[in-house]
Amino acid sequence: METVFQQRLEAAAQATEAALERLLSRAPAPGERARPARLVDAMRYAVLGGGKRLRPFLLIESARLFGAEGAAVIDAAAALECVHAYSLVHDDLPAMDDDDVRRGRPTVHKAFDEATAILAGDALLTIAFDIVASADASPDVRVGLAAALARAAGVGGMAGGQMLDLDQDASWDEAALRAMQAMKTGALFAFAGAAGALLASAPTGEQDRMRRFGGHFGAAFQLADDIDDLIRDGAAGRPSLAALVGPEEARAMVGREADAALALLAPFGDAGEALAGAVRFVVDAVS
Amino acid sequence: METVFQQRLEAAAQATEAALERLLSRAPAPGERARPARLVDAMRYAVLGGGKRLRPFLLIESARLFGAEGAAVIDAAAALECVHAYSLVHDDLPAMDDDDVRRGRPTVHKAFDEATAILAGDALLTIAFDIVASADASPDVRVGLAAALARAAGVGGMAGGQMLDLDQDASWDEAALRAMQAMKTGALFAFAGAAGALLASAPTGEQDRMRRFGGHFGAAFQLADDIDDLIRDGAAGRPSLAALVGPEEARAMVGREADAALALLAPFGDAGEALAGAVRFVVDAVS
Repeated sequence: METVFQQRLEAAAQATEAALERLLSRAPAPGERARPARLVDAMRYAVLGGGKRLRPFLLIESARLFGAEGAAVIDAAAALECVHAYSLVHDDLPAMDDDDVRRGRPTVHKAFDEATAILAGDALLTIAFDIVASADASPDVRVGLAAALARAAGVGGMAGGQMLDLDQDASWDEAALRAMQAMKTGALFAFAGAAGALLASAPTGEQDRMRRFGGHFGAAFQLADDIDDLIRDGAAGRPSLAALVGPEEARAMVGREADAALALLAPFGDAGEALAGAVRFVVDAVS
Repeated sequence: METVFQQRLEAAAQATEAALERLLSRAPAPGERARPARLVDAMRYAVLGGGKRLRPFLLIESARLFGAEGAAVIDAAAALECVHAYSLVHDDLPAMDDDDVRRGRPTVHKAFDEATAILAGDALLTIAFDIVASADASPDVRVGLAAALARAAGVGGMAGGQMLDLDQDASWDEAALRAMQAMKTGALFAFAGAAGALLASAPTGEQDRMRRFGGHFGAAFQLADDIDDLIRDGAAGRPSLAALVGPEEARAMVGREADAALALLAPFGDAGEALAGAVRFVVDAVS
């Protein structure tokens, strides 16, 4: 029997996929002249037909907690997934992580070419801001989403975290690894939580609560992913918190992040069950 | 004696430079954890200390025509220059145009490395949306700027134009070259004009007038640049309208774009002198 979490994750994935199909069609939007087919194809290849859509799920369920649902919520979720997909396309490039395969398929620069992959990433990042700025919400909400997304994705967020991760000379103690991961992966999860509350025009205190929820959830998720890599491949890969402290202590860290995330959900009672189920799913995955 | 155009261009460059210095400081903005020094340095290297700041000038003078000036106008000009600088950083990459030198200095991937250049471009594009979304203007204006900037820069604008330009198999007739240039360089100039009017909350008809002004100005500017390349290097470079039709006909085209631009300024009389001077400057440069 499917849990509420699994049902909602599936529903979020389907809604996000449909929105991306619509938003990444080849027809030019008003104010655009044309959308070159090759670039649209590379953008669609990067963002459609794969991925758990975990960040959209977080955004959509966070919005639901405060009573917001509908087109603007789904569009914001699609925009967030465009930013996530762009980061994967650029991270996979030869000059970065040089990965040929992602989710069992050739990476974008392998399926197309490097120039197209760079431009497809650029265009996915750019269209995310078009999507949130054009969403069916008040100007206040739209501009809040655009600013928060830019801060989460930029020099002080995801892009900055990737820069830190590439530093060959860094001395990775626990604090440095936590700070890097909080930027590289945590920032978009934190945005997902906060954006949901923002879309409902929830009080800033509640937006902050959901930002912190997303941050703890993202940290637990990243730790679980790193534990998985560690058990599968040994400590040969990138520096990670799990590799530094070992799988046992890393599992304890997942538990602590999960507890912090669940505590933030407590006031919502049963209404928080889908998000709580997501937290427990991450914990179960490493148990 | 300096013309009004030259005085205003110099003033716009100084104001934009000061805004970029402030916006690209190393101190994290609220909501950011930290700004990695190497990434900030690469962003600053890309955008500070060079360039005529022609796009900021157009935006600032377009705003002035409708009575807007001040911090929001300068910030929007700085954001536009961040987008322009990002496009140069990515276009210079080995997988794209593979240029080692720009404005007499090593390109970003030469001065730093390829991964840093990719991230610096990404982060410059991203911070542009933070800047316009956080500007000291109404939510309506800020969200209008963000949406228009995304459409101008994205798959249906500048990034799409760069994709078309990279197509080795394209058959470049006059219509195809015009369409490509209108996206690759024209879209940001058109944004500059429209954004100025938008910042003043001018009627949409006037925003559209200034968008068309920017488009004609951008076309004249690009043609003049291509004529310059053609005379200096012969037709060995990229396909261009000037190379296709030859320098004489290209000069006539500059004249026609300039006339169209000046006609759009006519209703403003003397108030349009700085922008009109910019148009005449481009015409004089190829005469």
